[in-house]
Amino acid sequence: MATMSSTMGSSELLSIHANDKVVSDVSTTSNGSATPLGSRKPTRSRYRHVAAAHSRPRTSCLSHDSEHAPSFLGFRNLMVIVLVVMNLRLVVENFMKYGVLICIRCHDYRKQDLILGAVLYALVPCHLFVAYIIELAAAHQAKGAIGRAKRNDVKPQDSAQVAKSFKSTWRTIAWAHAINATLSLAVTSVVVYGFIHHPLIGTVSEVHAIIVWLKICSYAFTNRDLRHALLKPDSASSLPDLYSACPYPHNITLGNLSYFWWAPTLVYQPVYPRTSSIRWLFVAKRVAECLSLSVFIWFASAQYAAPLLHNSLFKIASLDLPSILERLMKLSTISLITWLAGFFAIFQSALNALAEIMMFGDREFYTDWWNSPSVGAYWRTWNKPVYHFMRRHIYSPLVAKGWSSHAASAWVFVFSGLLHELLVGVPTHNILGVAFIGMVVQIPLIFVTLPLEKMEGISGKVLGNCIFWVSFCLVGQPLAALLYFFAWHAKYGSVSKN
Amino acid sequence: MATMSSTMGSSELLSIHANDKVVSDVSTTSNGSATPLGSRKPTRSRYRHVAAAHSRPRTSCLSHDSEHAPSFLGFRNLMVIVLVVMNLRLVVENFMKYGVLICIRCHDYRKQDLILGAVLYALVPCHLFVAYIIELAAAHQAKGAIGRAKRNDVKPQDSAQVAKSFKSTWRTIAWAHAINATLSLAVTSVVVYGFIHHPLIGTVSEVHAIIVWLKICSYAFTNRDLRHALLKPDSASSLPDLYSACPYPHNITLGNLSYFWWAPTLVYQPVYPRTSSIRWLFVAKRVAECLSLSVFIWFASAQYAAPLLHNSLFKIASLDLPSILERLMKLSTISLITWLAGFFAIFQSALNALAEIMMFGDREFYTDWWNSPSVGAYWRTWNKPVYHFMRRHIYSPLVAKGWSSHAASAWVFVFSGLLHELLVGVPTHNILGVAFIGMVVQIPLIFVTLPLEKMEGISGKVLGNCIFWVSFCLVGQPLAALLYFFAWHAKYGSVSKN
Repeated sequence: MATMSSTMGSSELLSIHANDKVVSDVSTTSNGSATPLGSRKPTRSRYRHVAAAHSRPRTSCLSHDSEHAPSFLGFRNLMVIVLVVMNLRLVVENFMKYGVLICIRCHDYRKQDLILGAVLYALVPCHLFVAYIIELAAAHQAKGAIGRAKRNDVKPQDSAQVAKSFKSTWRTIAWAHAINATLSLAVTSVVVYGFIHHPLIGTVSEVHAIIVWLKICSYAFTNRDLRHALLKPDSASSLPDLYSACPYPHNITLGNLSYFWWAPTLVYQPVYPRTSSIRWLFVAKRVAECLSLSVFIWFASAQYAAPLLHNSLFKIASLDLPSILERLMKLSTISLITWLAGFFAIFQSALNALAEIMMFGDREFYTDWWNSPSVGAYWRTWNKPVYHFMRRHIYSPLVAKGWSSHAASAWVFVFSGLLHELLVGVPTHNILGVAFIGMVVQIPLIFVTLPLEKMEGISGKVLGNCIFWVSFCLVGQPLAALLYFFAWHAKYGSVSKN
Repeated sequence: MATMSSTMGSSELLSIHANDKVVSDVSTTSNGSATPLGSRKPTRSRYRHVAAAHSRPRTSCLSHDSEHAPSFLGFRNLMVIVLVVMNLRLVVENFMKYGVLICIRCHDYRKQDLILGAVLYALVPCHLFVAYIIELAAAHQAKGAIGRAKRNDVKPQDSAQVAKSFKSTWRTIAWAHAINATLSLAVTSVVVYGFIHHPLIGTVSEVHAIIVWLKICSYAFTNRDLRHALLKPDSASSLPDLYSACPYPHNITLGNLSYFWWAPTLVYQPVYPRTSSIRWLFVAKRVAECLSLSVFIWFASAQYAAPLLHNSLFKIASLDLPSILERLMKLSTISLITWLAGFFAIFQSALNALAEIMMFGDREFYTDWWNSPSVGAYWRTWNKPVYHFMRRHIYSPLVAKGWSSHAASAWVFVFSGLLHELLVGVPTHNILGVAFIGMVVQIPLIFVTLPLEKMEGISGKVLGNCIFWVSFCLVGQPLAALLYFFAWHAKYGSVSKN
């Protein structure tokens, strides 16, 4: 509307004015006869109305023939402001529509859920100690075998024989570990699926069981390889230097296992890089971050996500596609914010606090995944503990067995999909397979975006990054959340009731 | 929800693996006794499950103790995507709520409005030619005075006497110009306010009249100073070199005036920097840009802004403050988009096309105002034609008269506020004073943000830029639009009718 406006703020103007005098010497094309008009010294004219505002040819800075493109940093600031304002508006709209939805007393959970959750939380780690006892027996037998070998003074080539005979023993140990580990996961899953109604308590129990299960697997696999390395000391294979501080049978102690139990990692190592002291202020700050982010997430879910999800139920039930799309896009912002807050709370705040308390030196729980130029780069960087586990205990051994790296990667995603389905499907009492499919779909996405990551120049990386964000925060998260939420309400009656 | 995931995409993994072997030589604190375990050559281990994932102390990249802050470029991409998605959602929501609101036949304007607009469009430039006749008479008299002076062979000190006597003549000329210029503006304003109902036709007529009025003022002031410079050739004052191609009385021709009439500037110069040819393809592209942006603006206004403004009417009438705030925030996005499109259409596309046709060399109609570190910088950069006028014909002469630069700037904004009020208040038939106040409020804003502009480092500039954007696109534009829209409907009955 106001297409016309004006001008200038301060004494800076005068210097601009003086500059114009200087540049007015630049000659220009003209069409009149030239007669000099008085002296032309570069002094300030008394006649202010004659200054040459247009003294030389110039281009508009947005034109293609402009010498250098202008900076667009101001528009970045504008984007941040517009995002804040748009979301602030939605906050106001939400408040006018629903009022305050936060209600601490309204949370209802059955007492049975809490008790079962607490029992599971106490029982699951016991399996770690069963794994310790299995390893203790295995180490005892290995030490015996080495003692016998030393006494009989066998030649190196016979040590291969020893290792072979030991392989049959490994089968027994492997079975023991498998039964122990699977039991911990299976019991938890059955209890959560059958007896814990509250989805949050169920999810926490299931996450805990999966973490312990992965730890047991890592403990068993690592100790097997350490044992084999001890039995074949002549092999070309080497162990990391780090481990020399605590060679194989010495690491099978309760203290060593307890450290692994609490250490912020899923990968067992006899020795970890350690820090020399605990900065309690650091811990306090991280805990405070984690708590405030948790409150924020709870608030955002209850006030913004919940009414949105409830609104969507009937749209999904009636398969009204434009409405579902609209709900999905509205949900994507809140699910993205919640996810980012959750990521920071867990991977930055909680894991750093835990690492500080455990004096665990390696804090690289993630790297800058938000810049991922491809979907594959995202999965390699956002969750380092799980990435380390998958790489060391699944991908790397499969490649060593002769699998192609692509096949091994694909299998990692299939395995990860199974764990995701367990994690989401069991506590929501709906094994839909959506979480599994969501993970498996990553495989083609990774191969599609792989060339973008390796492309020269910035545009390929930006495109890859955009594909990653869209697939991640538009299609992935909110769609899965919507589907499981719908399935939950279809099963427990909200949809059919109304 | 999905707090756990996994890993890796391609053969790149193997190289990461190899790297870990190398870095595992970094020594770490440990607590066990050290016994070497076989050879430790950096070859690939057969035992894949023992690789040291955690081989050295590392920090999380978002921690303060991290060596270098990570790049956040990915979040910029995310912001763009979220903005697009959020607005796409609003598009879907708008469509579901209102359907298609675009209707070409529904536009009703009175025939009288069109006829009056056309008459005004034809008559207003005539005043430019009246100004030419006034200047022709003045130049004739000046040439006579110089001729007489030459014949009488007066000494230089007497030429001051000549100029003084001429000053009384200037008073007559000034009165003639003032009556002529004011008449053009006053007649247009009265006709628009009293007889043109359609606000768009009224606005176009008013803009045209103000542009011609400013051109007449510039023509009169510039020629007065050129004439004085001719009468006092011995003064220390100098004229820009550029003007030597067409010295004073030679520039008072119909051709010279006609060029100024159509040139994309409000500042009269006897000579302008020129280009040597017209690139018609360039013109065609700019015209196409301008047309498509106009269609876009019309579409955006009719489909998105109009229902929003209509929804707000009753909220304003009932003074429901949270609702007004919510409407204002929703309106700010669409008004910002419309404004940006309008800016580009006028200052980049239309003015560049006109300049190309007129072979006008100086295309700097704006500079990168979007990066403005202060409100003052914005007003100096976004509208160069008006800025040049205000600087040359108001600010600079006032400073030469001894005004402080702050007082001169303030007066410029008061003057600009009057023009704005004329521009908005007259076509909407509501002289509310909001446009005037909007401009005058810029004065304190400029002084508040001036220190930010001069601050060392980037944070002051970013803060200044954010203050500029918020004041500009959140408070300024949409609030003014809302108020004039409300006043219009209060006067013409939409509010009282319902």
